[in-house]
Amino acid sequence: MIKVTVWNEFCHEGVWKQPNVLEHYPDGIHKYLESFLKDEFEVTTVTLYEADGTLNENAGITRELLDNTDVMLWWGHCTHHMVPDEAVAMVADAVRRGMGIIFLHSAHHSKLFKTLMGTSCNLHWRESEDKEYLWVIDPSHPIAEGIPEHVTIPMEEMYGEPFGIPEPDKLVFIGSFSPGEVFRSGCCWRREYGKVFYFQPGHESHPTYHIPEIQKIIKNAINWAYSSYRVAELTCPNVEKPQD
Amino acid sequence: MIKVTVWNEFCHEGVWKQPNVLEHYPDGIHKYLESFLKDEFEVTTVTLYEADGTLNENAGITRELLDNTDVMLWWGHCTHHMVPDEAVAMVADAVRRGMGIIFLHSAHHSKLFKTLMGTSCNLHWRESEDKEYLWVIDPSHPIAEGIPEHVTIPMEEMYGEPFGIPEPDKLVFIGSFSPGEVFRSGCCWRREYGKVFYFQPGHESHPTYHIPEIQKIIKNAINWAYSSYRVAELTCPNVEKPQD
Amino acid sequence: MIKVTVWNEFCHEGVWKQPNVLEHYPDGIHKYLESFLKDEFEVTTVTLYEADGTLNENAGITRELLDNTDVMLWWGHCTHHMVPDEAVAMVADAVRRGMGIIFLHSAHHSKLFKTLMGTSCNLHWRESEDKEYLWVIDPSHPIAEGIPEHVTIPMEEMYGEPFGIPEPDKLVFIGSFSPGEVFRSGCCWRREYGKVFYFQPGHESHPTYHIPEIQKIIKNAINWAYSSYRVAELTCPNVEKPQD
Amino acid sequence: MIKVTVWNEFCHEGVWKQPNVLEHYPDGIHKYLESFLKDEFEVTTVTLYEADGTLNENAGITRELLDNTDVMLWWGHCTHHMVPDEAVAMVADAVRRGMGIIFLHSAHHSKLFKTLMGTSCNLHWRESEDKEYLWVIDPSHPIAEGIPEHVTIPMEEMYGEPFGIPEPDKLVFIGSFSPGEVFRSGCCWRREYGKVFYFQPGHESHPTYHIPEIQKIIKNAINWAYSSYRVAELTCPNVEKPQD
Repeated sequence: MIKVTVWNEFCHEGVWKQPNVLEHYPDGIHKYLESFLKDEFEVTTVTLYEADGTLNENAGITRELLDNTDVMLWWGHCTHHMVPDEAVAMVADAVRRGMGIIFLHSAHHSKLFKTLMGTSCNLHWRESEDKEYLWVIDPSHPIAEGIPEHVTIPMEEMYGEPFGIPEPDKLVFIGSFSPGEVFRSGCCWRREYGKVFYFQPGHESHPTYHIPEIQKIIKNAINWAYSSYRVAELTCPNVEKPQD
Repeated sequence: MIKVTVWNEFCHEGVWKQPNVLEHYPDGIHKYLESFLKDEFEVTTVTLYEADGTLNENAGITRELLDNTDVMLWWGHCTHHMVPDEAVAMVADAVRRGMGIIFLHSAHHSKLFKTLMGTSCNLHWRESEDKEYLWVIDPSHPIAEGIPEHVTIPMEEMYGEPFGIPEPDKLVFIGSFSPGEVFRSGCCWRREYGKVFYFQPGHESHPTYHIPEIQKIIKNAINWAYSSYRVAELTCPNVEKPQD
Repeated sequence: MIKVTVWNEFCHEGVWKQPNVLEHYPDGIHKYLESFLKDEFEVTTVTLYEADGTLNENAGITRELLDNTDVMLWWGHCTHHMVPDEAVAMVADAVRRGMGIIFLHSAHHSKLFKTLMGTSCNLHWRESEDKEYLWVIDPSHPIAEGIPEHVTIPMEEMYGEPFGIPEPDKLVFIGSFSPGEVFRSGCCWRREYGKVFYFQPGHESHPTYHIPEIQKIIKNAINWAYSSYRVAELTCPNVEKPQD
Repeated sequence: MIKVTVWNEFCHEGVWKQPNVLEHYPDGIHKYLESFLKDEFEVTTVTLYEADGTLNENAGITRELLDNTDVMLWWGHCTHHMVPDEAVAMVADAVRRGMGIIFLHSAHHSKLFKTLMGTSCNLHWRESEDKEYLWVIDPSHPIAEGIPEHVTIPMEEMYGEPFGIPEPDKLVFIGSFSPGEVFRSGCCWRREYGKVFYFQPGHESHPTYHIPEIQKIIKNAINWAYSSYRVAELTCPNVEKPQD
């Protein structure tokens, strides 16, 4: 069974207890994600904050946790700056050594995503009640398995281009918002030995993760991001000439 | 001065004299393209058909023409099948040897584009009065130079995903249509030594090529596709061991 | 079990019965490939020629065969031109609809590979007794699973750059030959819904396919190229506006 | 005239005054690079250290310098860790805003290159007297303009795969070393609005930069990396709905 760790900032629903978020995710976004993943994957959840406002040490990131994670999900929004650089470095290193990672929605601006991309990861945005169509660009891609031509998201925060990312190795979804903006909503990269997927839907005040097709995409992405290849340490060896 | 050859099928406006096309392009799409390109480029036009219905030999393609073309523009729609395989092979070979080429609108289904892509180049479509927003994905790309965040096309034929192409080397524009569909509207590839750009806008019954930003994009694309590198023949040489 | 079809020209060993090829592949290259694949895959073999010189109809390609093939292996060298265009079109269409395909060695110049690539697929070459080192560029890639840092091939035909292909989506192996030439020896692409792998080693007069690591790479490539996604027909549908 | 800033660590030849480096670069690698660039470009040089061992403030990086640089060259080796994070952040930001950058040889392990790549940038290496052949993979690429099929470098430090980088957007050169190793020696990427080129040759104790073809490649790379597009600041704007 693939070992999944769901990391959540846990501010909107946890520390700040915003009613419009708790309405959809009463136990936290991480717990909701766990609820639909746990039948297929071995799920652990970690948060930056506890519900009582306690800040977890090193954002809850330990080497032991990383060694027991095949694929990590990352949801963050308002407190990216509170994640210690040490935690960012440790997770980025785990990705480079082969761990898969899926960045959800506003994690586009996490230090971790920017570290792995090498760019600003800026975008255009608008909090609104826009409808989003999520279009499948490549129906043969494993992340699109079982997904119809488009998924309708009744309300989502608008994320628009230009999105300040390196050209994806593979673009799987493009989102369009009812006023007309577009976004590269599902993007795949490799970073050394690890696979990275960015997935745009999932604003905290809308019940996007309740949509069955969105859940299916996240499950597909976990299966895609999993790799049996993992090295304990990245090295830069001084080598002898080939002898054969 | 870059030498540009505009190739046009010339059926809608030429042979069939459809009023809704002649309204926008009374002398043919090729002549209209020439009209806004000729100040900056040395332009030649070639057509599949003459206005009297005569079919030009080998679609007007000769080795001499190709040897005098830096960048070709290709517009075709209903009579792709009338272009001889020999003409397709000659132009594809010129691209591989270093000639640039820009496929306009319904040229996505030309034998030539499919030959260079290796795929079906299928898409979803609808003739309609949909409004299109053409979004710039990478404002730093030479083809987007001087173009605002989006270009508004009051009416265009809808082209939707999935678009059956190989992943572009670089995606420059995404179009969104008012009912919500999206399309990879500006895509760059290399095919051996030649550069290829596909550009979606330009339905024959709408005055899309009259829009200044669309004209600017086509000019930019010509400058981008131009290469000083051109070989007379592609070879597969039997070689000696390196001697130095 | 993945259904594999091995296609072989069968001239060197079959029709022409060249001793230096029969020495390594007495029953044909296809039969040798089948011998090490059949434990893990359901293998069918098809040839262009029979051993008595009979030319098989349509190169042995039927729609039924393609419908029962998940991944095809293609080995050809001297009689690429004898493969009917109809056979090429049928296999290329199957790849676009989701079938995986692996091109071996001199299949770089098959009409089929050139059709899928859109380029000349030319290279530099020399029949020699050069030693080749095949270097793993990405040890985390599924096709490199279980392969050491490099594989030593005691003698191989030299294939050198420039290789006239579109930039691979992913480069897995680079070969170097003892006189110093290099080659992109293991390249991955997608063509619409199908995956394509080109693998350089495998000259007919050397026992390259007898090397366990080469066998392992081919098995890995089959597993990588397999997709559960397959459409019966590629279409270009005229669609209604989204209704939801 | 393109404004080029050559940045050099200046330890081997400057602070440490190693005879085997001074032999080739008596005034420093930066001054030697300047000597063959200054006829075509407006060149500024900046160093981490002065020859007397003084460490320059913020590695000599100022906003004013960056605002007056079109393309930067970066050479570093043993004191990557002495470059302040602030300097790295400022240069990386300039690249993302449109400045071109060329990383030379051991700059593969600079904090700056790793920041832009998002990976370890590890490789295999051996200080030796190996001969290197630098092979042109794409002779039509602007960086290979005027370069023969291969360049012979009589002695170079061996750099071998796997090279821990994201898949290049375009691979221009592959190097092979006389014992048989290979390396992706010339790689292109975009990072947001800026172009990045990594170029492997240039070990401090060999006179590699004296080779005319190597000088030509560096000049070509500067011309390629130059962009007229530059933004003063990267932003993540909250936007209104499109009004047209």
